[in-house]
Amino acid sequence: MEHQLGIIGYGGMAQWHAFNINKSLGGTVRIAGVSDIRAERRDAARADGLRVYESNEALLADPAVEIVLIATPNDGHLPLTRQAFAAGKHVICEKPAALSTAQFDEMIAASERAGKLLTVHQNRRWDSDFLKVKEVVEKQPLGRVYMLESRVQGSRQVLNGWRGAAVNGGGMVYDWGVHLIDQVLQMIPESVAEVYAQLFSVHCAEVDDNFKALLRFESGVSALIEVSMNCFITHPRWHVCGENGTLVIEDWDCRGRMVRLSDKEELKWDEVIVYTAAGPTRSMAPRPVETMEELPLPAVTGDSFRSFYGNVARALEGQEELAVKPAETRRVMRVIDAIFESGRTGACVKGPI
Amino acid sequence: MEHQLGIIGYGGMAQWHAFNINKSLGGTVRIAGVSDIRAERRDAARADGLRVYESNEALLADPAVEIVLIATPNDGHLPLTRQAFAAGKHVICEKPAALSTAQFDEMIAASERAGKLLTVHQNRRWDSDFLKVKEVVEKQPLGRVYMLESRVQGSRQVLNGWRGAAVNGGGMVYDWGVHLIDQVLQMIPESVAEVYAQLFSVHCAEVDDNFKALLRFESGVSALIEVSMNCFITHPRWHVCGENGTLVIEDWDCRGRMVRLSDKEELKWDEVIVYTAAGPTRSMAPRPVETMEELPLPAVTGDSFRSFYGNVARALEGQEELAVKPAETRRVMRVIDAIFESGRTGACVKGPI
Repeated sequence: MEHQLGIIGYGGMAQWHAFNINKSLGGTVRIAGVSDIRAERRDAARADGLRVYESNEALLADPAVEIVLIATPNDGHLPLTRQAFAAGKHVICEKPAALSTAQFDEMIAASERAGKLLTVHQNRRWDSDFLKVKEVVEKQPLGRVYMLESRVQGSRQVLNGWRGAAVNGGGMVYDWGVHLIDQVLQMIPESVAEVYAQLFSVHCAEVDDNFKALLRFESGVSALIEVSMNCFITHPRWHVCGENGTLVIEDWDCRGRMVRLSDKEELKWDEVIVYTAAGPTRSMAPRPVETMEELPLPAVTGDSFRSFYGNVARALEGQEELAVKPAETRRVMRVIDAIFESGRTGACVKGPI
Repeated sequence: MEHQLGIIGYGGMAQWHAFNINKSLGGTVRIAGVSDIRAERRDAARADGLRVYESNEALLADPAVEIVLIATPNDGHLPLTRQAFAAGKHVICEKPAALSTAQFDEMIAASERAGKLLTVHQNRRWDSDFLKVKEVVEKQPLGRVYMLESRVQGSRQVLNGWRGAAVNGGGMVYDWGVHLIDQVLQMIPESVAEVYAQLFSVHCAEVDDNFKALLRFESGVSALIEVSMNCFITHPRWHVCGENGTLVIEDWDCRGRMVRLSDKEELKWDEVIVYTAAGPTRSMAPRPVETMEELPLPAVTGDSFRSFYGNVARALEGQEELAVKPAETRRVMRVIDAIFESGRTGACVKGPI
């Protein structure tokens, strides 16, 4: 069964949806057409061979449209979601779904009133780097993972267009943070006990262009989430500490390494003092390589568009549980609220979240 | 003028002091002798050619001893410092000077009552890696530094001897944290406004064997301090973000890189969407290399024993201000108190510190 999708807001991300849907989702989802309040983006959609509605209202009035993808600037998500539910459509909302938990609760309520599906395009649940880390957290080849760091860093310095404007819900917590938080909550099935965050506006006057957020889960597991637009020598995408080993994934191409303690008892390491350039140290003495073993990274890879839209289609057909559930997105929004609160007050925000 | 030093506690660190003093401090400081409550360490001192006192009291009773270096387990620092001041000696205490600010205040009071010098062996103020970072913070070749990370990571897993015992003031906050905190406070001449910390006991039952502490200074400058004994793929020793560039120092040998925005206007980078393995991104598009320039690391290097003891000698002679001042160590102790409080309560501890 092919589901017809209307797209409201035809920016770069909507164009990426359209390209991928047309390329690989035939038979599952078809694009009925798009609307955008900007004439030049309606022209772009026409140039891309898409049907163009002259207004959002015209799109929502088309009975052929079953699902609406809302891909406008972030401040448009709530009002347009309300309109879409009022028109009896299912809604896929780009991330961040809303600017706060309170706003997202209104979206959930509208969905329930309409009896229509609400989901959020948390496509990075199918990123290959994330899936590899998730497998290491779950299968524990390094022992229990007690600390991880998830970073996305660039040096563009300035946020593009509306993403730099506070009124539109710009800034890096909303833009990238939302993905990194969602991924971490997917991996660690526990309540968040503490959220402490530091936000920076280094080159953007209105919004955060860098942030560090340190989460602590109920059992003590720690997650550092960091996004930077001003980093010229980046950290790895992931750094994951298990009780007996470490995983590093450098980038989205999944270059990386996984190292753990060898289980060969005869390789037990005797205590030794090492004289480094900075003096003697026993606790920081370099570990002999023969006491460690290198493991291959998990083989798992993802295919986000096929997985995301395939799931939405099957959920609508009653064949599968929805992958990105409103309750999950609500938790992500609560962590985002906590990050902004911590950044504003300088306090650590306590859970459970 | 040659100052005579008595050493109380002849463990690995005292041995390192003795080796370096004998090697390169002739004419400045001479070792009068050592004491240790353990017979085997008195034997070790004799084997190293040092005079051995049969008790700490005998050492303190020797009028030839002008300065006492206290290099016992950490819980011995306060009682032995008191004894040394009561005997009319100047005191150099190994780090951490004390287990809390309250304890250190007793040491300061004892010093003032005795009218004798108190200083702490914060030798890492002369580490070459630190001096290079400090120069970058001060001279600003990367613009204003707004965020830095200072890490020491190993994979030894288990703390050696008394360093693993709570009663002796073991654990990584006291052992390495004290250095990294002192360095950061030396570099950033501002009050600490916030301290949030996460402590871990991964393989040590009694004390912290890993910790992350996130400091925020008055103006918003951020410092992440991390020590780990369970990291098999380490981060760089330093990661420093200026407004227009990044400095990374990998290790104590000062391998590293410094990169900043080129100031050539014609190399301005046009906006572009890049399609990565994880989808399109404009904000995280890789920066063209021609818009950056590589700078050499600062040339400055340090010589900690010569600098530290030379300063103590000149301070005693009234020729120079003391390098490691009790007021500075007191601030370090206050940050340590805040780290433990934050770790215990899960709250962020507010300054000013």
